[in-house]
Amino acid sequence: MTHDASDRCLSKQLRGIIPPMVTPLLDRDTLDIAGLERLVEHILAGGVHGLFLLGTTGEGPSLSYRLRRELIERVCRQVDGRVPVLVGITDTSFVESVRLADHAADAGADALVLSTPYYHPIDAGSLLGYVERITEELPRPVVLYSIPSHTKAAFDRPTLARAMELPNVIGLKDSSADLIHFHHVLRLARQRSQWSVLMGPEELLAESVLLGGDGGVCGGANLYPRLYVDLFHAAEAGDLTTARQLHQCVLQVAGTLYAIDSRPGSVIKGLKCALACLGICRDTMAEPFESFAEAERNTVRRHLDEIARLMSINARTSETAR
Amino acid sequence: MTHDASDRCLSKQLRGIIPPMVTPLLDRDTLDIAGLERLVEHILAGGVHGLFLLGTTGEGPSLSYRLRRELIERVCRQVDGRVPVLVGITDTSFVESVRLADHAADAGADALVLSTPYYHPIDAGSLLGYVERITEELPRPVVLYSIPSHTKAAFDRPTLARAMELPNVIGLKDSSADLIHFHHVLRLARQRSQWSVLMGPEELLAESVLLGGDGGVCGGANLYPRLYVDLFHAAEAGDLTTARQLHQCVLQVAGTLYAIDSRPGSVIKGLKCALACLGICRDTMAEPFESFAEAERNTVRRHLDEIARLMSINARTSETAR
Amino acid sequence: MTHDASDRCLSKQLRGIIPPMVTPLLDRDTLDIAGLERLVEHILAGGVHGLFLLGTTGEGPSLSYRLRRELIERVCRQVDGRVPVLVGITDTSFVESVRLADHAADAGADALVLSTPYYHPIDAGSLLGYVERITEELPRPVVLYSIPSHTKAAFDRPTLARAMELPNVIGLKDSSADLIHFHHVLRLARQRSQWSVLMGPEELLAESVLLGGDGGVCGGANLYPRLYVDLFHAAEAGDLTTARQLHQCVLQVAGTLYAIDSRPGSVIKGLKCALACLGICRDTMAEPFESFAEAERNTVRRHLDEIARLMSINARTSETAR
Amino acid sequence: MTHDASDRCLSKQLRGIIPPMVTPLLDRDTLDIAGLERLVEHILAGGVHGLFLLGTTGEGPSLSYRLRRELIERVCRQVDGRVPVLVGITDTSFVESVRLADHAADAGADALVLSTPYYHPIDAGSLLGYVERITEELPRPVVLYSIPSHTKAAFDRPTLARAMELPNVIGLKDSSADLIHFHHVLRLARQRSQWSVLMGPEELLAESVLLGGDGGVCGGANLYPRLYVDLFHAAEAGDLTTARQLHQCVLQVAGTLYAIDSRPGSVIKGLKCALACLGICRDTMAEPFESFAEAERNTVRRHLDEIARLMSINARTSETAR
Repeated sequence: MTHDASDRCLSKQLRGIIPPMVTPLLDRDTLDIAGLERLVEHILAGGVHGLFLLGTTGEGPSLSYRLRRELIERVCRQVDGRVPVLVGITDTSFVESVRLADHAADAGADALVLSTPYYHPIDAGSLLGYVERITEELPRPVVLYSIPSHTKAAFDRPTLARAMELPNVIGLKDSSADLIHFHHVLRLARQRSQWSVLMGPEELLAESVLLGGDGGVCGGANLYPRLYVDLFHAAEAGDLTTARQLHQCVLQVAGTLYAIDSRPGSVIKGLKCALACLGICRDTMAEPFESFAEAERNTVRRHLDEIARLMSINARTSETAR
Repeated sequence: MTHDASDRCLSKQLRGIIPPMVTPLLDRDTLDIAGLERLVEHILAGGVHGLFLLGTTGEGPSLSYRLRRELIERVCRQVDGRVPVLVGITDTSFVESVRLADHAADAGADALVLSTPYYHPIDAGSLLGYVERITEELPRPVVLYSIPSHTKAAFDRPTLARAMELPNVIGLKDSSADLIHFHHVLRLARQRSQWSVLMGPEELLAESVLLGGDGGVCGGANLYPRLYVDLFHAAEAGDLTTARQLHQCVLQVAGTLYAIDSRPGSVIKGLKCALACLGICRDTMAEPFESFAEAERNTVRRHLDEIARLMSINARTSETAR
Repeated sequence: MTHDASDRCLSKQLRGIIPPMVTPLLDRDTLDIAGLERLVEHILAGGVHGLFLLGTTGEGPSLSYRLRRELIERVCRQVDGRVPVLVGITDTSFVESVRLADHAADAGADALVLSTPYYHPIDAGSLLGYVERITEELPRPVVLYSIPSHTKAAFDRPTLARAMELPNVIGLKDSSADLIHFHHVLRLARQRSQWSVLMGPEELLAESVLLGGDGGVCGGANLYPRLYVDLFHAAEAGDLTTARQLHQCVLQVAGTLYAIDSRPGSVIKGLKCALACLGICRDTMAEPFESFAEAERNTVRRHLDEIARLMSINARTSETAR
Repeated sequence: MTHDASDRCLSKQLRGIIPPMVTPLLDRDTLDIAGLERLVEHILAGGVHGLFLLGTTGEGPSLSYRLRRELIERVCRQVDGRVPVLVGITDTSFVESVRLADHAADAGADALVLSTPYYHPIDAGSLLGYVERITEELPRPVVLYSIPSHTKAAFDRPTLARAMELPNVIGLKDSSADLIHFHHVLRLARQRSQWSVLMGPEELLAESVLLGGDGGVCGGANLYPRLYVDLFHAAEAGDLTTARQLHQCVLQVAGTLYAIDSRPGSVIKGLKCALACLGICRDTMAEPFESFAEAERNTVRRHLDEIARLMSINARTSETAR
């Protein structure tokens, strides 16, 4: 299989809001196809700058390879170039990562997202070697993905400095929630103008963009894509008043919908449950997680009402301000 | 596909030494077939009580599914019932775990080894639900596998107490290195006579068997199967003098071959390099690790000489003692 | 001993830059008195809003109680009301914390800074009980101090929500570097107008103030007090351009002077060494740390030159901009 | 103050059971003197080989220095040379450690127990320098104490290898619960015949002594000193049957009395509550912990009955076996 990386690649730097799409399911190995189609349109209608499949929020590693391939094909076909599609290929197996990447390229994906091989603990030297070897074999540009809470390994600064020189690596999605690290990486990246540094946790989107970051991979943009897009634009434009206001909305979303319980998986459960309440897609979780029961679903509904109220107050305030 | 679990199952409780076999490779997706055949015979010649494929030492999660299936088939055919073959099916995807388990059962494997789905962090409640659901679908008896250094999650006591009641779960391989936990779990298990509790780290084999454990999954038994089998029998028989002596040999192996450097992967690299020095199989590592260079290989050679000397002193001492 | 908390208390909410002063030493139990006097004047000349003694940067827990008392007395006398003086009383012993607090109050300190008792691990319930009991006995208003990297325990949101209702607790210094937590705590605090939320790590000062925080306890303000004061004012005023520029200076300080090596204590060693290079005070470290040797000191000198150059460029740029 | 270390020092290697005594209190700064006297006699009557004051179980770091000094004086006077008295002097302040050590030596203590200065994180190099400098100034032989769950730092093997050469350091109390580390350290120590390696967690006493360790610092020996002394002697003598039986009793104690709840401090609370139930001393906890309420106390009583029953069965069985 040969790839011509140039015939369909990212024409410019990744910037803006690139939601990590949840994966709508009917059961553990069946896509909720109607829900998926509604979800993609719902997200794109919010003005997002890209779409990221099979990340952590997308429960990528929990899905069968068959289902992952089906998802990639369907979404690439539906999006059809309206925004760049990024596909998560993180795997413990080098060979399976490359295989999935080849499939994604054939389906029309624009870029790949790669975290560390996450079963064995790994040191910085081995990680760099791995990144150098695998990116050489990947058919599309690669965004590195740091999420040590899940992979046990972060990309440190020397590794990233080296990665910035690799021809096929175009940026970093930093889900470490370590802002000190983020700021130092951003300083490094600004010496290489085309390198994107994207924020993972949406609670940190405002500040990361205010201080020079390139955007965010915000889970909440599955639900409220416009909120995150507006916050990005306000922060980018230096409109502090709006940025502060929308930042409070984001905190409201994260402090309620993502905190229904304090168990792992609650962010994704909260997102899927809220999407189900809004009639967009099913809330079936991939193993090993279980969907919320009726009691939690009622709490989610109540939170959705409060968020709607807060967002409409903001909208009216900002109308008045004009 | 239907399975008759009774037509080929473990006729008695797992006990003894069940080496986690390293996976001999020619390159990242090709088995070293001649090396594999020599390795299997080398291990079986040591009198081991079973063989465990595709565990951590076997770099299971780093291999392609195709290669994993090939390995299972070849080894099951070669072992041909001489000892039980256990196959690691740990995966982040429920569906892929079951698929690999079905393949293993068809190839003639006797039991399956299952750790936690290790990408997402997981709480005890979700883990128990997962174990209940997946073991119902698995075609062979299951040994649970606790290795929180790699999976970020241990099986706690309430989860294990419940798992002991599941018809398809026959034991635990505990690689937590937490002996306090091990002792408490062993107390629980002794209330269910057929439930095996096996030790992971070989440095803890002596004490675990002296105090009632059922054996060990010792990486070093790839290299010196007889040493670990002898230690097991001595500890089981309450022969403290021999057990102490052989425990010192095990510490010598672990304190030298596994400590060539302090980077993750050094245990497996040390084992594979030593096997290559002895002419048994190639030392090619699966990604993301790299094999030792010539300098480290020379150190391994020197350590092998010292170990041989120590073991022959022990052998002579124990001759004299008879 | 009785205290009249009202006769000398903080007349208004804590806001701004409150440097955690390093403790100049001649040897492990002797103050560098001349250096201390120069350091206090150097810091106050930068326009800071308070002075915090015996924190982590001040190596408080490493010093004898006699020396701590001497330091408190000398600094309170020298400052003489020009800015509020805060004194760290964190201790593993409740009784010793109260004793030091009483001494500080008698010496004229304005507020106390209290982290968790840090030897035994502690759960949230026990921590809250402790805070309730000890703050009742303390003679001055208390700022809580969260620094889990050192104390193994953070103040969680429910504990802080309760602490905000205690009459004697006036704020939080958050050195967790967990911005998500910080934002949620700040939301809570804004419902109680007088409660201060101060940032610990100076790399996060810009964003915390841009998004509503009350200031910072910045170690670098021992060296460049004016830089941090200017950054605080710019961020508070919403002057993004200046804030971004000064934020880069702060990153330059932290990325060079604090990173001479990667061992614990390097931040304090870097600060003390730089102060010594500038002729302000001695760089003797309290046990268990040792001062930098000549090689590291030369590196520090080189970094000081680069920082001076960067800061003068900024100054000229901002002149031009006016 | 001068010390003649030779006039009252440990005449031989530390071996056996050296209970870490709980500190009986009437309130947060007052000793329960009558309870203390009963407790000391209760423990000594069990045939222990030493007594360790002001350790973790003794809530040492939680007590005022005045109370610590009073405790040392009273216990040294009461013990009066019947067994060696060891005193914990671990502190974040070098100067306070030395001061307490001098006081202990003057009061007649035989040895000192020193962990790492535990506020600041510390690297191995700084820790070794600290140990070298402080042990030179200490007036009695020193046992190092590794308890990373509380101090965040373990003594690694190179540090211990060097410490074994220091004239004033006579052994290690290892509360890391890391048996692999323990075994390797024991191998090192056996090359220096007088160096003691003592086990912290009592659940690991049996195996540590069976495999060559020198004894244990068992919290449960406050309550059942004879049980731990008998287990030590059985394991030392290679009497596996008795060792296994008594090991089960120890697990019963730890699995019930120490697990009343899962909060930090539950081991000490369980011990003190049980001692109070038996009429030996008060169960007042030092801050920040609170004593058990009536409900937990009733559970403790029930567990004490079960333990008594199990121990009497064992006693009868072992009678019969003779």
